[in-house]
Amino acid sequence: MKSLGIVVEYNPFHNGHAYHIQESLKATGADLVIAVMSGNFLQRGEPALVNKWARTKMALKAGVDIVFELPFPFAAQQADIFARGAIGILEAARCNFVCFGSEEGQIEPFLQVQSFMSQCQTEYNSSVKEFSKAGYSYPKASSLAFKKVAQDTELLDLSKPNNILGLQYVQAIKDSYSIQPCTIQRIMADYHSTELGTHPIASATSIRKRLFEESLSIDSVKNQVPSSTVKELLHYLNQYEAFHNWELYWPLLQYKIISSSSSELAGIYEVEEGLQNRFKGAAESAASFKEFMESVKTKRYTWTRLQRVSLNILMNRSKDQMAAESREPAYLRLLGATDKGRQYLHQQKKKFDLPLITKPSSYKEKLETDILASMIHALPLNPANQTLIRKREFQPPVFLDHEKGS
Amino acid sequence: MKSLGIVVEYNPFHNGHAYHIQESLKATGADLVIAVMSGNFLQRGEPALVNKWARTKMALKAGVDIVFELPFPFAAQQADIFARGAIGILEAARCNFVCFGSEEGQIEPFLQVQSFMSQCQTEYNSSVKEFSKAGYSYPKASSLAFKKVAQDTELLDLSKPNNILGLQYVQAIKDSYSIQPCTIQRIMADYHSTELGTHPIASATSIRKRLFEESLSIDSVKNQVPSSTVKELLHYLNQYEAFHNWELYWPLLQYKIISSSSSELAGIYEVEEGLQNRFKGAAESAASFKEFMESVKTKRYTWTRLQRVSLNILMNRSKDQMAAESREPAYLRLLGATDKGRQYLHQQKKKFDLPLITKPSSYKEKLETDILASMIHALPLNPANQTLIRKREFQPPVFLDHEKGS
Repeated sequence: MKSLGIVVEYNPFHNGHAYHIQESLKATGADLVIAVMSGNFLQRGEPALVNKWARTKMALKAGVDIVFELPFPFAAQQADIFARGAIGILEAARCNFVCFGSEEGQIEPFLQVQSFMSQCQTEYNSSVKEFSKAGYSYPKASSLAFKKVAQDTELLDLSKPNNILGLQYVQAIKDSYSIQPCTIQRIMADYHSTELGTHPIASATSIRKRLFEESLSIDSVKNQVPSSTVKELLHYLNQYEAFHNWELYWPLLQYKIISSSSSELAGIYEVEEGLQNRFKGAAESAASFKEFMESVKTKRYTWTRLQRVSLNILMNRSKDQMAAESREPAYLRLLGATDKGRQYLHQQKKKFDLPLITKPSSYKEKLETDILASMIHALPLNPANQTLIRKREFQPPVFLDHEKGS
Repeated sequence: MKSLGIVVEYNPFHNGHAYHIQESLKATGADLVIAVMSGNFLQRGEPALVNKWARTKMALKAGVDIVFELPFPFAAQQADIFARGAIGILEAARCNFVCFGSEEGQIEPFLQVQSFMSQCQTEYNSSVKEFSKAGYSYPKASSLAFKKVAQDTELLDLSKPNNILGLQYVQAIKDSYSIQPCTIQRIMADYHSTELGTHPIASATSIRKRLFEESLSIDSVKNQVPSSTVKELLHYLNQYEAFHNWELYWPLLQYKIISSSSSELAGIYEVEEGLQNRFKGAAESAASFKEFMESVKTKRYTWTRLQRVSLNILMNRSKDQMAAESREPAYLRLLGATDKGRQYLHQQKKKFDLPLITKPSSYKEKLETDILASMIHALPLNPANQTLIRKREFQPPVFLDHEKGS
């Protein structure tokens, strides 16, 4: 079996994701899809709309065969660390391909830029530093540094978010492994678009926005997601009485910031350059997460970066912890699989480079940070549901039998 | 002017408190009443029903002339530290008397026991340690140790809570000061009684219990509190839409315990002997503060002790911080005064042994812990009220003109 790896968040799974799977299979001729999916908190420093179990079911029902969890220390991170974790897991699971969506749509420019970058890595790094010092946010500084070292050779448009992320995937692939990168063109005009039209393909951002604007009415997004997503969203809302966004966590974040000393906050991952004092001042008077964010925002920090800082504070992650845990992935935690996926795991698992975790209760210590993320993600729910979710962490993965549709 | 010092919590001010003032004035012939009152968190490790400003008003309207705040590091503490802080403040404010309610009712037995204890302090201390090691709670160990060293001479019944506290007051009075202790007999049968009858005098515990059981109906307690208390309670409920109890803080405490590592919890004041792991286990599955407390309770720890531990966790107070801040009171923070009280302050303040704080904005650093306590006490309220209360911290004390009844 040829296996295709994909890196996903599915927040929630929508028609564009189905298109990505379908086109990636076409492009690679693979027989099986392995997704590495962020757990309960996402790259932009946000809580997932619905938890990882609901999103695993959406994935398995819509064409994915195996879902591994991208651990928290990689999931809520800047592009290079996120990519290192995701590619590391797909490599360890012995995927033949990794296929990502990009604005570019062709793999050659990525390979050319990677080769070019490996030659002038030192120059590029010092240039990023310079632009950062000049007050640019990290993504902007990276893009400017690239333009500078590339001296206007227009190999790849690195102002586009999925091109940036794609380049990080290609760079994360190690010479010693044989995973083959490929890309398909994204068919959305604008990744960050928040306006949801009638087009069957829309960004997850616009779908979430619509859900919250329309009093969590799942009907309002049913044209943009497959019926399996509709079913899971309905089930989630019925069981947990909530979709998650930052506002639900604001009382906890506010309390954490107010009750921590400046020096305690300064020890948190990504809290840098006096940010702790800005955060403390803003937390005292903000009436909501949105108000808080607006009050700490400056040109120097992107919204995403500040959300990640907030998340690290909420999760109480120290600089030391995160540095140690984000070096390399240390395990393959199985969230779910179809029959075909289980067959693959059975055949291949002896060759995996990392321990495959299917019985989480035997790996409590290794999984500590992900379990904490699940418990914190569940804190806005009622006590009975919190207990359900805590127990769920130690139960077997989601096994879906496609034949039976269970 | 002869001044009478009293140590109070007024949670809320009730008829028994009015009786205490009246009888203490009779017993001492004093002209003026100075109360040192706990701020927003109380000796038994609980949030005050209403905040310190509302309770200051109750006090001033019911016969107290000056209210000083007992700072957090003394207020939520075991009897000896609580007494050290309270007596230290009354001494610094140059009170002539301190008069406390006790089951005993006569001061001589307290003075005899104090003299006796000072002779066998070492024996007593090592006996307390022994009983503690044997698994007794601190109050029980103290009482047993006393019985042992006193060899059954029945000077004072130290199984009674107000006798214990009274003895601590007497012991806290330093030879170098001239404050004179006296006591009046409490007229309640049982301090901890939670049943509220029709008798005009009832314990604060039973009054709070009734309030919460009767959906915060202030009518249900109007026979046991003066009309000024009724007015303040109504005003508070109208403004803040809540009376405070531990359940309101449970989501914050649960989050704090879950998100802290065991070693972080072990650094918190009064977290001892593996309590951090019991707390972590219980916090994960408890559905309420009550359920949490019931699940951590053992014979070794009193409910009060465990509430104080929980409060230190909520307030993020480290062992080092609390040890440093509870040595001696460092300031006299004025919460409020009547005209007569202001006259006394004007006459006496130059002789005060500690700085008198009437403009808190100039003492932000000194008051840091009390300001934090106020902000945390206010966290269950809506954002507008949180802002009000944060600002209130930096505004002038409550000045009440009795003539005008303002």
